[in-house]
Amino acid sequence: MTDEPSAPELDDGDALAFTKTHQQRRARAGAVTTPHGSIQTPAFMPVGTQASVKGLTPRDLRETGSEIVLANTYHMYLSPGHETVEKLGGLHRMMGWDGPILTDSGGYQVFSLPDVEIDESGVTFQYEKSGEKVQMSPEFAIEIQEALGADIIMAFDVCVSADADYDEAQEAVDRTGRWLKRCAGSQTRDDQALFGIVQGSVFPDLRQRSVSQTLEVDLPGYAVGGLSVGEGHEKMMQMLEVTAPMLPEEKPRYLMGVGYPEDIIEAVARGIDMFDCVIPTRHARSGQVFTRRGKYRVTNRDYQVDKFPLDANCNCYACRNYSRAYIRHLIEADAILGSMLATLHNVTFYQDFMRTIRRSIREDVFQSFRFAFLDEYLGSQKKGDLGFHRLEDAYDLEDLPWETEHSCIPSTDIQRNLDKIGPQDNLNSTGDRISEIMKL
Amino acid sequence: MTDEPSAPELDDGDALAFTKTHQQRRARAGAVTTPHGSIQTPAFMPVGTQASVKGLTPRDLRETGSEIVLANTYHMYLSPGHETVEKLGGLHRMMGWDGPILTDSGGYQVFSLPDVEIDESGVTFQYEKSGEKVQMSPEFAIEIQEALGADIIMAFDVCVSADADYDEAQEAVDRTGRWLKRCAGSQTRDDQALFGIVQGSVFPDLRQRSVSQTLEVDLPGYAVGGLSVGEGHEKMMQMLEVTAPMLPEEKPRYLMGVGYPEDIIEAVARGIDMFDCVIPTRHARSGQVFTRRGKYRVTNRDYQVDKFPLDANCNCYACRNYSRAYIRHLIEADAILGSMLATLHNVTFYQDFMRTIRRSIREDVFQSFRFAFLDEYLGSQKKGDLGFHRLEDAYDLEDLPWETEHSCIPSTDIQRNLDKIGPQDNLNSTGDRISEIMKL
Repeated sequence: MTDEPSAPELDDGDALAFTKTHQQRRARAGAVTTPHGSIQTPAFMPVGTQASVKGLTPRDLRETGSEIVLANTYHMYLSPGHETVEKLGGLHRMMGWDGPILTDSGGYQVFSLPDVEIDESGVTFQYEKSGEKVQMSPEFAIEIQEALGADIIMAFDVCVSADADYDEAQEAVDRTGRWLKRCAGSQTRDDQALFGIVQGSVFPDLRQRSVSQTLEVDLPGYAVGGLSVGEGHEKMMQMLEVTAPMLPEEKPRYLMGVGYPEDIIEAVARGIDMFDCVIPTRHARSGQVFTRRGKYRVTNRDYQVDKFPLDANCNCYACRNYSRAYIRHLIEADAILGSMLATLHNVTFYQDFMRTIRRSIREDVFQSFRFAFLDEYLGSQKKGDLGFHRLEDAYDLEDLPWETEHSCIPSTDIQRNLDKIGPQDNLNSTGDRISEIMKL
Repeated sequence: MTDEPSAPELDDGDALAFTKTHQQRRARAGAVTTPHGSIQTPAFMPVGTQASVKGLTPRDLRETGSEIVLANTYHMYLSPGHETVEKLGGLHRMMGWDGPILTDSGGYQVFSLPDVEIDESGVTFQYEKSGEKVQMSPEFAIEIQEALGADIIMAFDVCVSADADYDEAQEAVDRTGRWLKRCAGSQTRDDQALFGIVQGSVFPDLRQRSVSQTLEVDLPGYAVGGLSVGEGHEKMMQMLEVTAPMLPEEKPRYLMGVGYPEDIIEAVARGIDMFDCVIPTRHARSGQVFTRRGKYRVTNRDYQVDKFPLDANCNCYACRNYSRAYIRHLIEADAILGSMLATLHNVTFYQDFMRTIRRSIREDVFQSFRFAFLDEYLGSQKKGDLGFHRLEDAYDLEDLPWETEHSCIPSTDIQRNLDKIGPQDNLNSTGDRISEIMKL
């Protein structure tokens, strides 16, 4: 079914194993094993905020190629409550997802609340349900995550906004370092892998300082936090360039809350192994669709009578069975099925993308794939904005491994030609484009 | 896979074939064949208002045992527009549903609008999108339905409210009769079966008058309309008792917009073959769950930590994999998956119910099943309200065919005992009821 390499075995007493099987420059391909099975890396984790990836059943999610899911600790704490989740047998059992799960620590959400009070002991905020004050501390974040029972759990860190000044960022780094020790010290379960989080905002020396402090605790994996908070693609990449090389080679590296496909592939090029983001699911619900040729809004009037699938290169259930026009209608009519189908497609697109990234690293054509992808995916405006010039010189089309397990482009002329124009083109706004396509 | 009898073949030039294979007193079992395949009757049609049964993909819908779907002409006319649907290849192709489809005529919706003007030519109303006046006429209702392309289409009738007086109801009957002729006369496609609709409100002689007028047009099937509009169970049944026996034996009979399980089984007992209703889907979205022991609200606090499935007698995907507590959490958190899972269950419950009705008729135990079902399903209050007294004298438990294709009650003691208590009981509000159940 897959040509992907086999994953490492879990040693007795370990909660996580990682093997790096291939590397091209800094880009790494490998696999992570947890008590609930393995994932191939680089991996993308869809976000199941309320213990459910919005609009997908776990069997749909499996079909997209997703191997691991993220759930939000803060949301689980609020509802149904971590003690309830524990009584229901933990997240895996409750969600009906038997694969690996990662929970964040809740820090990111708590720091976003209004009127939080932060001191060395933790973060105090107003509990939405009762209005009473609640403190989230490193110890409590671990207690909640132990009750939830995910395979990978995250340290409770201090997040600062993108416009934090140097002193504020340094204070956050140091406190994050101290809190990490308290997190590690309060762990009572040995079947959950705790990841530490590197902070440091957009200051290279603070990133370095944070890495040093984080690595003082020997953990099965490390994350890069505090990015994707408004600093922009370029700064994000600069931070990864200084941070990733300092992280241990033999441990997985997780970039939190990222991102768009261009962010992901560029982060992989800088040595990142794991990602999570709400973008594919959230965008789907508003009708924004991802394809190799970029993203587009299927709610646009251009697609009103468009018979083609969301993405002619995709073999997901939505693309095999439904037209853009129908999905547009459903989203406009606020029918749940519209969100369901667009989400199924977007997550499948992300997973096909990750599979192709992994394959290109294994086949030693990652650099070529990277630039070919960006050249095809980004509009010319965006290429300029991100500083990608003359991308076409950087790859050889013959090298491209853009063929995924899912991909089954029908070999008719229509479909082959359709493949050449894609959703961003606008040949005929009435939507019946067969005749136009046949001419190509 | 199914022990249900084979369906009739479609003769050349016919749009519909019906065979009645079994009858017990007035209850009939049979099959209807359309250009898109067959359905077993008595049949329940889930409603896909916006060309989508809310919260279910067509593959999910298939899994529930649904064989035919209803779509609303009025909603399709508003959005995406019948001409758009036609350009997209018709409803079947657009919705990705290759089985039979029935469209209503839009009359029911149009008559519910504010400020409609009704005259002999048709009904004039304000078009929501542009604010301009639009007239829906018998001819236009057929034109729209021909563009949509359903297998069974409905005549454009005059609907009156439950409190209409005799004169108003008689006028509606007579106009419905005249409009039926215009509908039949304007049909241009021969692959769609037009059903006429009997009106007459709650007046037995008007029902009779309407049947006579409707039967003046020889059609492949007939519907009973104007019920389930607030007249109550008893009146509805009285009207069926006078109406159904006058309809041709060899044609399918469709009771529009009905209903609750108790309405359906009692209508089957009076000779009805087809039903449609939004109840199982709409109720699901607000957390109301159907089981053999009645319906209950899974959003109730009692189910906060309840590990049992929505319905221990159901083998749908939701009941195989998820607890009441999880589905309660999802619905409370407004997560789409909650609606999806509850809808999947409720529609499966309805289809299991219809399958059991059909089987009981074939096995000549329908009367016994009918009273056993009502005895188990209705609360004692409701039994009294509906006039069902000493139901237990009316059936023999040994006769019950309550074993469906779906049903797979695990044969452990726990499950057998769980089966005895059901969701309406409230043994232990903390929800961990294993110990209680084991004692039974």
